[in-house]
Amino acid sequence: MINVGIVGGTGYTGVELLRLLAGHPQVNLRVITSRSEAGIKVAELFPNLRGRIDLRFTEPSPEALTACDLVFFATPNGTAMKMVPSLVSTGVKIIDLAADFRLRDPEEWQQWYGEPHACVDILAKAVYGLPEVNRAAIQTAQVVANPGCYPTAVLLGFLPLIAQGLVDNQHLIADAKSGVSGAGRKVELHTLLCEASENFKAYGVRGHRHWPEIRQGLSQAAGETVGLTFIPHLVPMIRGIHATLYAPLRDTQVDIQRMYEDHYRDEPFVDVMPPGSLPETRSVRGANQCRIAVHIPPTGKTVVVLSVIDNLVKGAAGQALQNMNIMFGLQESLGLEAIGMIP
Amino acid sequence: MINVGIVGGTGYTGVELLRLLAGHPQVNLRVITSRSEAGIKVAELFPNLRGRIDLRFTEPSPEALTACDLVFFATPNGTAMKMVPSLVSTGVKIIDLAADFRLRDPEEWQQWYGEPHACVDILAKAVYGLPEVNRAAIQTAQVVANPGCYPTAVLLGFLPLIAQGLVDNQHLIADAKSGVSGAGRKVELHTLLCEASENFKAYGVRGHRHWPEIRQGLSQAAGETVGLTFIPHLVPMIRGIHATLYAPLRDTQVDIQRMYEDHYRDEPFVDVMPPGSLPETRSVRGANQCRIAVHIPPTGKTVVVLSVIDNLVKGAAGQALQNMNIMFGLQESLGLEAIGMIP
Amino acid sequence: MINVGIVGGTGYTGVELLRLLAGHPQVNLRVITSRSEAGIKVAELFPNLRGRIDLRFTEPSPEALTACDLVFFATPNGTAMKMVPSLVSTGVKIIDLAADFRLRDPEEWQQWYGEPHACVDILAKAVYGLPEVNRAAIQTAQVVANPGCYPTAVLLGFLPLIAQGLVDNQHLIADAKSGVSGAGRKVELHTLLCEASENFKAYGVRGHRHWPEIRQGLSQAAGETVGLTFIPHLVPMIRGIHATLYAPLRDTQVDIQRMYEDHYRDEPFVDVMPPGSLPETRSVRGANQCRIAVHIPPTGKTVVVLSVIDNLVKGAAGQALQNMNIMFGLQESLGLEAIGMIP
Amino acid sequence: MINVGIVGGTGYTGVELLRLLAGHPQVNLRVITSRSEAGIKVAELFPNLRGRIDLRFTEPSPEALTACDLVFFATPNGTAMKMVPSLVSTGVKIIDLAADFRLRDPEEWQQWYGEPHACVDILAKAVYGLPEVNRAAIQTAQVVANPGCYPTAVLLGFLPLIAQGLVDNQHLIADAKSGVSGAGRKVELHTLLCEASENFKAYGVRGHRHWPEIRQGLSQAAGETVGLTFIPHLVPMIRGIHATLYAPLRDTQVDIQRMYEDHYRDEPFVDVMPPGSLPETRSVRGANQCRIAVHIPPTGKTVVVLSVIDNLVKGAAGQALQNMNIMFGLQESLGLEAIGMIP
Repeated sequence: MINVGIVGGTGYTGVELLRLLAGHPQVNLRVITSRSEAGIKVAELFPNLRGRIDLRFTEPSPEALTACDLVFFATPNGTAMKMVPSLVSTGVKIIDLAADFRLRDPEEWQQWYGEPHACVDILAKAVYGLPEVNRAAIQTAQVVANPGCYPTAVLLGFLPLIAQGLVDNQHLIADAKSGVSGAGRKVELHTLLCEASENFKAYGVRGHRHWPEIRQGLSQAAGETVGLTFIPHLVPMIRGIHATLYAPLRDTQVDIQRMYEDHYRDEPFVDVMPPGSLPETRSVRGANQCRIAVHIPPTGKTVVVLSVIDNLVKGAAGQALQNMNIMFGLQESLGLEAIGMIP
Repeated sequence: MINVGIVGGTGYTGVELLRLLAGHPQVNLRVITSRSEAGIKVAELFPNLRGRIDLRFTEPSPEALTACDLVFFATPNGTAMKMVPSLVSTGVKIIDLAADFRLRDPEEWQQWYGEPHACVDILAKAVYGLPEVNRAAIQTAQVVANPGCYPTAVLLGFLPLIAQGLVDNQHLIADAKSGVSGAGRKVELHTLLCEASENFKAYGVRGHRHWPEIRQGLSQAAGETVGLTFIPHLVPMIRGIHATLYAPLRDTQVDIQRMYEDHYRDEPFVDVMPPGSLPETRSVRGANQCRIAVHIPPTGKTVVVLSVIDNLVKGAAGQALQNMNIMFGLQESLGLEAIGMIP
Repeated sequence: MINVGIVGGTGYTGVELLRLLAGHPQVNLRVITSRSEAGIKVAELFPNLRGRIDLRFTEPSPEALTACDLVFFATPNGTAMKMVPSLVSTGVKIIDLAADFRLRDPEEWQQWYGEPHACVDILAKAVYGLPEVNRAAIQTAQVVANPGCYPTAVLLGFLPLIAQGLVDNQHLIADAKSGVSGAGRKVELHTLLCEASENFKAYGVRGHRHWPEIRQGLSQAAGETVGLTFIPHLVPMIRGIHATLYAPLRDTQVDIQRMYEDHYRDEPFVDVMPPGSLPETRSVRGANQCRIAVHIPPTGKTVVVLSVIDNLVKGAAGQALQNMNIMFGLQESLGLEAIGMIP
Repeated sequence: MINVGIVGGTGYTGVELLRLLAGHPQVNLRVITSRSEAGIKVAELFPNLRGRIDLRFTEPSPEALTACDLVFFATPNGTAMKMVPSLVSTGVKIIDLAADFRLRDPEEWQQWYGEPHACVDILAKAVYGLPEVNRAAIQTAQVVANPGCYPTAVLLGFLPLIAQGLVDNQHLIADAKSGVSGAGRKVELHTLLCEASENFKAYGVRGHRHWPEIRQGLSQAAGETVGLTFIPHLVPMIRGIHATLYAPLRDTQVDIQRMYEDHYRDEPFVDVMPPGSLPETRSVRGANQCRIAVHIPPTGKTVVVLSVIDNLVKGAAGQALQNMNIMFGLQESLGLEAIGMIP
């Protein structure tokens, strides 16, 4: 059994992590901390957990956390990097679901997150937790940066094309759409039902924090800095990301469908759908799964990739469990067998 | 392992049954029949099942079904009663998710479903599969009538009051609200997104088929025919039933909260919430659970019970698995541990 | 032209009032005040008003308001009663869309709104602005209390029965359902899209502020204090109220359909639908209309009334314009001709 | 007064047309035909029209239609072209809201709509009814082809860039998102609430009928055949189109914001928003308006245009009224003053 602690955990990523951990056969959830909710039963805040999780939120306490084998951070950006160093020194493993360890370059981190990075040495050793790219490094990592939701959908969709050098890397477009839970359980005007439902809009056009993260992942695969336009949109639904990816084709002779199937053949959580498929976000609702379809529309010059995930599962808590399974030598899909919920 | 067959299974009850059966450790799904979809892969119709269910729909075949230990009928009303007799004679157990075996009185059945009942003898022996009422009988039943979704929510909510004789049985009101999946995966105008979303309405006011079913269950508990007004409403969401139940209190001295807690203390799938609670349908989304709260508003003369279920789980496919577990002597909650999905 | 001012106006009632006033041919909108948004263009906050309303929000100023013929208060409860006295003394007419002048009894007001009423003398002269009940008094009123949304739907639905003495006044039940905009444009957790959509729940069961308001209206019509159980529910949609009303019938010989039709025959904004009708909230979306249907379900002992309005129009801003038209001797439907938006 | 007839009118475009015509001061609606609904009152099918439209649907009759000054066709594709010739010969003016007269090339029409065009001579004289492009021609046209919803949003968004030659015409991308009402009031599986809500997907990737229509409009403006990738998506909401348009910039020195403002300065129904704006579909809900914002994201090489309309208003029925006003010399905005409904 893995002794697990959670820091934070009152947001949507947190409750999803709790739901998944409650069903994981090798996890012993020992502690969950929250300053604002200390003393409250977890199941009082989230009644779906009644009868399944008996813990109360507690004040953050180093002792309780260092007694764990693994600590998940489900905190706002900038929190984990301040607490992680002391935990790391005691040998605890860390999976950060926020952004603190995602960008390799501390200066770029500072530019996008507005403060200097608090533990550059640990950042240097942290592993970007996208198993389909970094599985081996995750096995031995002490600190894993769980990827962002948009980056997961966009990277898994674009990477085979980039890795094979089949497209013009300087004119990549990612038109991405996310359900509202991606904005978190924060009390904000624009995510009220009366603001966000029966409505559709773009946001973050001037610069979204997932843009440098995606660009970093694509550039690593390309061996050069790619040119990426990334426009996120808010969809009037709770869960789901749909990324529609466009790239000018360099070589129109390759069997791209086959290439994608080969690339992901052994991946338990990436499903390359048959030719002509149109992946639906609901097909992965609640499931740790990315479904991808590849199309070349009539003009023949642009390849279009459709990639869907549940932003809270493969885009957050599920991927975190997948990373945990890898870090602790468990079967990668343990506790992650849930099937997407239709309808 | 239980060898299981499904007749029907292309509707929402069917896909939910498939999703749950795919995660049940003691089930071997052998056959699923559908005239309209014969030859098609199940996972083609329901892409959430890709990689999890490899079967194709087949033409209904007596041989394939009689080789099963248990056959679920997820067919339109009036279908099971014509196929069940020959299966029963070979010893196969049956759980009917439609209405064919729910009403004890064949004449009442004919009145509400518009044709004579096709197997009155089997109807007489069939057991109404509400485990919280009929657990012992279900254990030995060959044919189980899985309850309707509204009846499950309303009966579980009202029964403790009726059983204890605390209310005026002649003035019961059930104001019930259901998500649209209760109407099934039928192509009908009024369940189009553009008709049913951003809208709220009552329906079935002149007489809904679940009314006699609820009245039957309440009258059995009361030992007399109850007076029940039942008004269902359509809620612009996919899953969930919320029943708001009203009854004139006869005795205002009883501790009703305590009485409900005692009544359901040992039930794995009924959760009596603390005083003052307001159960939310989403707290049971995807879960085989009924959550109940009891209130006595200021006037003091009327008791109000709030009861929520997921109409496709505790109101259909989940309850069917619960009945299967009971019929085959398995742990009642096997394969039914999923936690409600919030958000 | 009526010179109109608005105090508040940054909430949903406010923007709806602006939308309606912008289309009213006899209104000259002179000033709209908001402490929090002073200096901002109205159309910047609400881009639907771009090109139609050029005003900026200003700091509340007595001078600007006293120059108006009519001031609407679209402020939180407890604000209007502090500002109204000085305006009233200068002869300005007032329509308060909040609750400050709705309850006749200052002590009851204090009990439900948590502070003493600030102008009991004005309260005594204020008129409850339900035109179908108080049209004559509204014509000559200086201060009109615009009714709450639930009270509008419930009163219009129940009043004919009560007025005719056809039901048992001591066992009235109002099971009401409201879209989320009824909660206002406040930044609160429970009205986030991810909390309120795909979900249904009751709320305010221990006592909702509209309960005494409804009881007051019904009791006036009954000539005695009625017994009312009122349970509001939150519907995952933006606009609309559906009230399902239950009352034990005293006299089952009366033609209730005919009685309702007679009662509302001359009302421009109450539509008694044909027998068997099921009013939909969307049929009045954006329209100043109440649609009502009357049913007597099979048991024959309980009458069921279904009443729908758009909570922001007939339940708030539209009714306020209707009151304005009456107060200023205009045609009652002027500026209120918009048709419900389907789909 | 214009004597108006409607052929069809039982779909969403039809009911929206009825709603708008009922509020138009210069329209006398004389006849509305529908084979399937003949004899039924319009207001029975669409209860929002109760008290406002008293007509019944009638069987299509040449006499009744030729007595009109103008006939709208709100019929399935391929219907109008068979009925229009006889009407045209009697001098009646025609606005076709379907696709029969949108593509200039009869062969291309046949290729996309699957049958030969039935009146090539009339097609040759028909005018594409996008007032912002063809206002003068519409004034004198007898037959106007009302544009498709996607083409309206995409053309209005792209045209200034194309007309000025500022982008690489061979790599245009239109990632478009539509509410479900765009699919019409047809009873189909994929537009059921339980299929389309809480879900997001692309569709028509292999070729959507609006693709040649958009390409035709862009190519006319460009003076050459453009290269366009067009991917439509289904948004879980009722109304609204959001087009996100991408084009490689040829000239990065131009003030594109200013250029858009100049281009649309005198247009009553196109609103170029201030720099940095993110148009929301709800800001035009129910309104005959297109709102556009122009962005150049960090990379600097790609221009992004955001364009929103209500698919049933500026994308269908509203634009049809706008064309009617132009054809009959009325003020262009008559009857089209409705403001978008927020929330």
